[in-house]
This record gives sequence, C-alpha cells and structure tokens, in this order.
Amino acid sequence: MIRTPYLLFLGDAPDQLAAKVAQGIQDWRPENVVGQYRMDGCKADVGATDMSLQEAWDKGARTLVVGVANRGGMISEAWLSVLAEAMEIGFDIASGLHNLLRDENLLKATSARTGTTLHDVRVPTVAYPIANGKKRSGKRCLAVGTDCSVGKMYTGLAMDAEMQKRGLKSTFRPTGQTGILVTGRGVPLDAVVADFMAGAVEWLTPDNDADHWDHIEGQGSLWHVSYSGVTMALIHGGQPDALVLAHEPTRTHMRGLPEYALPALEDLRERALQMARIANPACEVVGVSVNTKALDDAAATALCAEIEDRLVLPTVDPFRHGAGRLVDGLLAL
Amino acid sequence: MIRTPYLLFLGDAPDQLAAKVAQGIQDWRPENVVGQYRMDGCKADVGATDMSLQEAWDKGARTLVVGVANRGGMISEAWLSVLAEAMEIGFDIASGLHNLLRDENLLKATSARTGTTLHDVRVPTVAYPIANGKKRSGKRCLAVGTDCSVGKMYTGLAMDAEMQKRGLKSTFRPTGQTGILVTGRGVPLDAVVADFMAGAVEWLTPDNDADHWDHIEGQGSLWHVSYSGVTMALIHGGQPDALVLAHEPTRTHMRGLPEYALPALEDLRERALQMARIANPACEVVGVSVNTKALDDAAATALCAEIEDRLVLPTVDPFRHGAGRLVDGLLAL
Repeated sequence: MIRTPYLLFLGDAPDQLAAKVAQGIQDWRPENVVGQYRMDGCKADVGATDMSLQEAWDKGARTLVVGVANRGGMISEAWLSVLAEAMEIGFDIASGLHNLLRDENLLKATSARTGTTLHDVRVPTVAYPIANGKKRSGKRCLAVGTDCSVGKMYTGLAMDAEMQKRGLKSTFRPTGQTGILVTGRGVPLDAVVADFMAGAVEWLTPDNDADHWDHIEGQGSLWHVSYSGVTMALIHGGQPDALVLAHEPTRTHMRGLPEYALPALEDLRERALQMARIANPACEVVGVSVNTKALDDAAATALCAEIEDRLVLPTVDPFRHGAGRLVDGLLAL
Repeated sequence: MIRTPYLLFLGDAPDQLAAKVAQGIQDWRPENVVGQYRMDGCKADVGATDMSLQEAWDKGARTLVVGVANRGGMISEAWLSVLAEAMEIGFDIASGLHNLLRDENLLKATSARTGTTLHDVRVPTVAYPIANGKKRSGKRCLAVGTDCSVGKMYTGLAMDAEMQKRGLKSTFRPTGQTGILVTGRGVPLDAVVADFMAGAVEWLTPDNDADHWDHIEGQGSLWHVSYSGVTMALIHGGQPDALVLAHEPTRTHMRGLPEYALPALEDLRERALQMARIANPACEVVGVSVNTKALDDAAATALCAEIEDRLVLPTVDPFRHGAGRLVDGLLAL
C-alpha cells in the first residue's frame, strides 16, 4: 500500500496537460493531497498549496507522488535530486513513469540507506492470461476517445461516483497510472506485453452481478497511431455493453502527432461500435462526454447542445454538468 | 542480427511438422543454410545436407539455429549437450522457443566462457521508440487476415521472393519468431510492451528508396479478440501503402475462440482499409491471398476465381499459384 497523504510532484511540467496524473489525484482524492511541489520553470498548477518538501512532511505528507509525465524519455538529473532529497527527509516515492524509479542508482541507493520505499505502479505485477473472449456476467462501460487525454478517465470516475451516489453497483477499473494511484489498484495496460493486453483487461473486469457496472478506464484512441493497439485491446478485452464517446473540442491535431487530424464524433461512433460488436454484439453507444475545460459556461452548454442535436445522444461534460445523464443512458439499456 | 550461414538443428523431432521452423528457413533462405544436424531418432528431414557440428563449422556455418519445437515445456538434456558442444566449437545459438536459452545454466555458462552469443528471438533486445506517425519514404505492404495463422507470413515471403526474382527492391520484415530466424532480424512484436508496439513497427520499416517495398509480416486479425491490438499496431505503425487480405477457407471459427465466427472478406477489406487510411490515406487493397492447402487443385482454382469475381481483386494462393499477380497489384499502384 502507498502511504497517504501525498505531496504531488509537478517537476518542470511544460504545460498543464503534462501534470494530468497530479490533477486526477487532486480532483478525485483531494483528502489525500497535502500540497504540490513545483520546480523552476513549471508551467502546471493543479490547485493544491505550493510547499517545500520539509513543509509537506511537517504537515503529514508521507509519499511524494510523481504527478507529471515524461514522454518515453528519461528521468532528468534535476528531478532525481529532488526525489532523493525527499527520501532523505523520509518520503516514499510513487511513480507511474515508464522509466522506473528502481532503475535509478541514486534512488535505489537512497531507498536502501533510508529505508524508504519506491513504488513503480506502472510495472505489471500479475502474469496476465491470453484473452479467451468468453462472455462474462455483469455489465461494462468503456469510454473511447477522439484522441488521447480527452477525459476518458474522468468520465469513468464520474460515472462510477454517480452510480455510487445512487446506491447502484459500480466499480471504476483503472488501466493507467493515474487511476491506479487514485484507487490503489488496476492494470498498467500500456506496460503489458502485447500478447496479454486483452487478457489483462478480461482479468481486470471479471464475472460480476448481473446489475453491476464496471467503468473501464479508456486509453489512447483508435485514431492515435502511437497507441491505437492499446485502445483495440480495451475494446475487445473489455467486451463493453456500453460505449461513451469522449472528446476535447479545442484540440487542433492528435496529441503529439501534428500531421494527424481528429476524427468526427460520428466516425468514432461508427467504427468503435463496429469493433466493439465483434466481442459484444449487444454493445450500444450511450452518450458523449465533452471536456469543456477550455470553454466558458455558455460556450460549453451551447457546444454540448449542438453535439447532442447532431448525434442524438446525451451529451455532457461530466466534470461541469455531472454524469447523471450518462448513467441514465446506461440504465436505459 | 544473427550471424549467417546456419546449421539447422532438428534435434530428435518426432515428425516433420515439429521441424517447421527449420523447413521455413530451408524453403525461404536456402543460401543461409549450410546443412542440418539430426540426433538419433530424428523423424524430420528438411532437405539440407546432414553434417556434424565440426563439418558445418568448417564449411562456414556460424550459428546453430534450433529449428524444431520442444516437448513438455523444457529443453532436454540431450539437446543441451549438443548445443553446448556447438558453442565450444564457436557457434552462436539462436532459438524461438518459449523456454529461453539464457535460462539454462549450462548454456549461459558456456556462452560466457566461450564468448559465443545466445539469441532468444522471442525476447525484444531493442528499446523501441513510441511511434511518431511521420510519413516515411519508400513503400510498405502488409497482409491482414480474417484470422490468425492463415498464411500472412507466407504471403509476405512469397511477394518478397517474387520481387527479388524480378530484380526489384524489396525486403521481408519479420514480426514473429519464425520470420526472424528465417531472415536473421526482425521484431518479436507479440513480446513488445503495449506502448511501443507501433513504434517497433516504425523502427522495423524505416525510410527507404522511393521504389523499395517492405513486406511486413502480419500478426493476428482485427477480428481476433485476443490479438487485435497487435494487428492494429501493425496497421498504424506500418502505415502500409498496400494491404493484402489473407484467408483460410476451411476455418470454422476464429482460432482458439469457438464462439467467434470469421468475418467476410468484404468486411475485412472495408474495416482494415478504413483503419489503415488513418496512417496512410493513399492505402489500397491490392489482392487476396488464400491458403488452399486443404483443397485440391480444382477446388483451389474455383475458390480463388469465385473470390476474385466477388471482390474484384487479384486472388491467388501464393504457394500454389505464385505471388506474381499480387506483386503486379503493388506495381500498378
């Protein structure tokens, strides 16, 4: 178990989106957050109180959570010295980066000497099976996006929270490091070996009560050429009964791929549903989740109305408007 | 990169089928084969010259390739002593077995002492990048199947061989262990970590001459729920200019998934092309490759004619009819 509460490490995040791990924890488990630690040049702010390592420790923080992404690169020297300093004070470190804490000699040595713990939540700890495609009991909902980082995790967390609030049977099933850090369990899907991806999703969403819903955290996009294989494994391993389309309206191109345009929501609906029905012929699209963070209230409401009119599907920003109408869509199936 | 030429190790293969990896090497790269090594009781013969380890070494062989499947989930003592003896002479050893050479103490110790190399081709040895989706020069062809194990590797090898015969620029790009052993290089895609699948395919098929064709070995199927994510990574990482549809007409359900029917070739054409055009809008389907092994000549010819009539695409069994018409389709693009 990762010791709480946390100090969120934002490093020298180049933009707000790079700190989405920290933002997710702050939004969904604020009671676990003492503050945020930002280095010189940090362009992100998740709304927690800025504080030094020692201040956070004195206020009770026990784990420094690396809440900022690096893209397939390395852990910089500047980061390492902060992490090592935190361990000298007594912090454990938790991270979902591809580059493992345990592979850094400085951190490994400091951990051994100080008796602090390195949590690499991205490393799979289970020998997942190859998917068998057998129909499982219970219901599953998956958010599929026009792009990466458009609010799929938020959608799942919000729908789960709404169902919990209504006293319905529901579980959020994380497939990425943020969700795992937020809930303490899940499958780090992008670190699973190719042959076992769909099997890992089956393992994550086992047989359940007939009226229980799993909200599976989506990853990537069928249109994102770097990660579409991961998305496909979720669609087939998850065998969802319901899909929610997730979209961010101000994105000008696929994230990290300047040459690639986003698909229309209509195309996402059609192709994701076609692929999903291979594993579950009863699958339906129940709504659209729009991340309207970049819009004001009036613009957000107008955009959702326009999409709802065009696609004839309940359309909301679950963070702004609540996930009630999306959950209504599930229950109407 | 595995040192060539090879001595093919057939061990004590109980039948011809057990030596299909060796047979593939002998069929497709006879110029890489110095001979075959058979132990007492071996029931397979791939048509290479039988010779001792020392004879093969003296004739120039530099790698002993395990071209036979093992039984009972272990590498037998009898095999181990031959492999170790080969290393004493100077051979490297290459294997695509699930049981890794490096996990055998005798082989590991002999390798360290003799300075010879153990190639476990199922294990990735490269830190593949995340795919960047950038357009690469040169041309690429990918076989996509209605199911797993329908002849996608054979199709790529046959098209490559046909292009070589015509003096055209062409390279077969293996993504599975047999193909890697045949050509001495490649990516064991089903063992690559999810996030890097598409990047591994980009790495495998880099910029090339404008008139050069890569024939990328296909894997899985968009309809095979266990492996569809791997297929998707090939379609997007490979950014193919041409697709060939691969099919085995006697399959009654998806391999290993009794509840799942095979798709119609028309559906495969439509959906694979839609997904491929995300990465390469110019992609076209150029033909159909039918594995007619289970049919007689008349039935095979009739079936290909029927499919050709229905899909209006050149349709052949490359093993029975040659890959000439598929290559013509590429060149007509």
